[in-house]
Amino acid sequence: MPRALLVVLDGCADRPVKELGGKTPLEAAVKPTMDRLTSEGSCGLMDVISPGIRPGSDVAHLAIFGYDPYKYYPGRGPLEAIGAGLRLNPGDVAFRANVATVNDDLVVVDRRGGRYIGADEVKEIEEVINNEVIPTLRAKYGIDAIYKQTVEHRGVLVLKGSVSPHVSDTDPHVVGARVAEAKALSEDARVTADYINEFTRLVHERLGKARFNEIRRREGKGPINMVLLRGAGSMRVFEPLSSRYRIRPAIIAGVALIRGIGVALGMEPINVENYVGSKDDDFNAAFHAAAEALRNHDFVFLHVKPTDSMSHDGDFRGKTMIIERVDAGLRRFIEEAPGDTYIFITCDHATPVTVKEHTGDPVPFMAWGIDVMKDDVGRFSERDCSRGFWNRIRGIDIMNIIANYLGTLEKFGE
Amino acid sequence: MPRALLVVLDGCADRPVKELGGKTPLEAAVKPTMDRLTSEGSCGLMDVISPGIRPGSDVAHLAIFGYDPYKYYPGRGPLEAIGAGLRLNPGDVAFRANVATVNDDLVVVDRRGGRYIGADEVKEIEEVINNEVIPTLRAKYGIDAIYKQTVEHRGVLVLKGSVSPHVSDTDPHVVGARVAEAKALSEDARVTADYINEFTRLVHERLGKARFNEIRRREGKGPINMVLLRGAGSMRVFEPLSSRYRIRPAIIAGVALIRGIGVALGMEPINVENYVGSKDDDFNAAFHAAAEALRNHDFVFLHVKPTDSMSHDGDFRGKTMIIERVDAGLRRFIEEAPGDTYIFITCDHATPVTVKEHTGDPVPFMAWGIDVMKDDVGRFSERDCSRGFWNRIRGIDIMNIIANYLGTLEKFGE
Repeated sequence: MPRALLVVLDGCADRPVKELGGKTPLEAAVKPTMDRLTSEGSCGLMDVISPGIRPGSDVAHLAIFGYDPYKYYPGRGPLEAIGAGLRLNPGDVAFRANVATVNDDLVVVDRRGGRYIGADEVKEIEEVINNEVIPTLRAKYGIDAIYKQTVEHRGVLVLKGSVSPHVSDTDPHVVGARVAEAKALSEDARVTADYINEFTRLVHERLGKARFNEIRRREGKGPINMVLLRGAGSMRVFEPLSSRYRIRPAIIAGVALIRGIGVALGMEPINVENYVGSKDDDFNAAFHAAAEALRNHDFVFLHVKPTDSMSHDGDFRGKTMIIERVDAGLRRFIEEAPGDTYIFITCDHATPVTVKEHTGDPVPFMAWGIDVMKDDVGRFSERDCSRGFWNRIRGIDIMNIIANYLGTLEKFGE
Repeated sequence: MPRALLVVLDGCADRPVKELGGKTPLEAAVKPTMDRLTSEGSCGLMDVISPGIRPGSDVAHLAIFGYDPYKYYPGRGPLEAIGAGLRLNPGDVAFRANVATVNDDLVVVDRRGGRYIGADEVKEIEEVINNEVIPTLRAKYGIDAIYKQTVEHRGVLVLKGSVSPHVSDTDPHVVGARVAEAKALSEDARVTADYINEFTRLVHERLGKARFNEIRRREGKGPINMVLLRGAGSMRVFEPLSSRYRIRPAIIAGVALIRGIGVALGMEPINVENYVGSKDDDFNAAFHAAAEALRNHDFVFLHVKPTDSMSHDGDFRGKTMIIERVDAGLRRFIEEAPGDTYIFITCDHATPVTVKEHTGDPVPFMAWGIDVMKDDVGRFSERDCSRGFWNRIRGIDIMNIIANYLGTLEKFGE
């Protein structure tokens, strides 16, 4: 039985960079292994969603795993919760949260509470909400909850029990506006909306009195005295990849959000030391782990994060170097992987270093393996791949293409 | 008024074959006429359904005729009935059937009754069911029916009158399991389910006593004493091609299933001597008949079967030879056809000789005619066509493309 590796280079697709002589980072990087695979296999362009649509990494990965995000995207709340390592049961409702600074009239002064929140502050914020606010509300509403601070000003609130995701945001989305009242958007959401409004009131009262805010005031910083909520959603039950494509899938991803999506889709997470989604990630170790994982899985997904981080920083040299280090890891993988392994490489979206943000440009896509058609293209890049055998596919197609080579798909019709 | 020929080479698309020097059969075959047409016209790749999805020939042809199979596929029963030359009226319910061997506890011993059923046996099976079982049930339920054996162990049961397709299979799909009870999947299917369960009981009783089974027992063969049913479905009413595309369509197909689908879509079937879907098919005669048919039709569909059969056998040389013989027939067609004829060539799916099964690979597509764009591609093959003018289309698009050249499509909007 054949097997497959899918490598997603996060945000790797790009636009011409003046300082690179008009080349993209993929064109400028020295990456003999990716280019060799491309010359032996075939390539094309991929619209992750559809031409011009710029996806977040969460939406992009849902599409790449074969789940139409227009149908399956559960909203920011549940994905933030998954990324934070919280376990969501069907029916639980998750909100994306921002800690914020408001004045006495609940008018928002800073939607991010200064953005950089210290570790001690995080600890105290979580303690006040989990040990004071939530138990008080539990006694009143019979609803249990968990609050967790994730990165910087970001956090997540998960409600458990008999709750509804159909409540409006308390986050007014602009500075200078009052914290919004949560409104029930359907009949069954009244209690949840009441809970959220009481949560807002209590958080303001208790956080305002917290010890860390005294220190902040002394240091001339605005107090962190509010949690703004938005993007309420329930995690839906996904048909796992294993039954959808009849494969045994594993995922290697340093970024919690991507690993969490993989786990929600039934992929076995594989931990790799020094592989946390940073620019110092150990790609050799990750590709070694991928080759090992293919001995008892037939599909391994490998996520590369720092190509995206470098792009957000506008660091085209750093991005080029990351591509070159990934290429070295890939060479190691080919030496170690079972002989009947197919390799697919693509990106989840473009993040041009000149734009420093996700864009809706098409991304390159490459397929390599024993009976993959060889085309005339010899380099893995945006422009080169546009001349390849595959022409243009969509993100939602790629798992079907992989399963087609693995021979695991059921026939449609007779 | 211009006219068009559409040739579908069943299962002709392929993958690189080592014994052909890494070429596909289409690349290896000597086919000067297809290549000449391609060099004078334009080409592309076609996803019959969508990338990676592997279709059966029934589903593939529905798509190529312009009927989205996700919406129009009526299931295996009705298509088997059509293939067997039975006429289905709206409301009739057809089941795909297997004659099988079961023990006294109705546990399946052989799902195919040994697969090869003699002509005498077929006659007796049909007589027992049509002359004994069905009349008994008609008296009890007021439901008329027809049973017909098709190829080998396969058969079809068609119920007429006030019946419902919403009944579950009696075929347990595995050996060693008991024949399943037909269950009503909707309220209106209760009588149909009762009918089917009584049918199962009576078939077992009457076939068990049939004379041919005595002979089988003497010869040490298991008795054929059950008919397993699955894939219940009603034929829906299709808008005929003639009104959908405003053409007068004809079909030349040796395979009953494909011809039956064409007839269900309102195409006039044209019989050709020695053209039955075998490797000895007379392609010269088929193309001659196509040229003749274009004198009083403006669209002729010509189906070539043995490219697929050779692929299922893994016979790459045989496949190459069939392509070459089709090419010779096509040359004759060009000499004989009216001067204003467009020619389109494609495949209904790939059947790589290395895989010996349908796959979801894209297939080549070629268009030729007086005002068809000429591109730079000079050979009809998977790889060559990937560089053509049309880039990548879907099966569902091809009839619209043809009607666009014929100028028969109504304008969408003003």
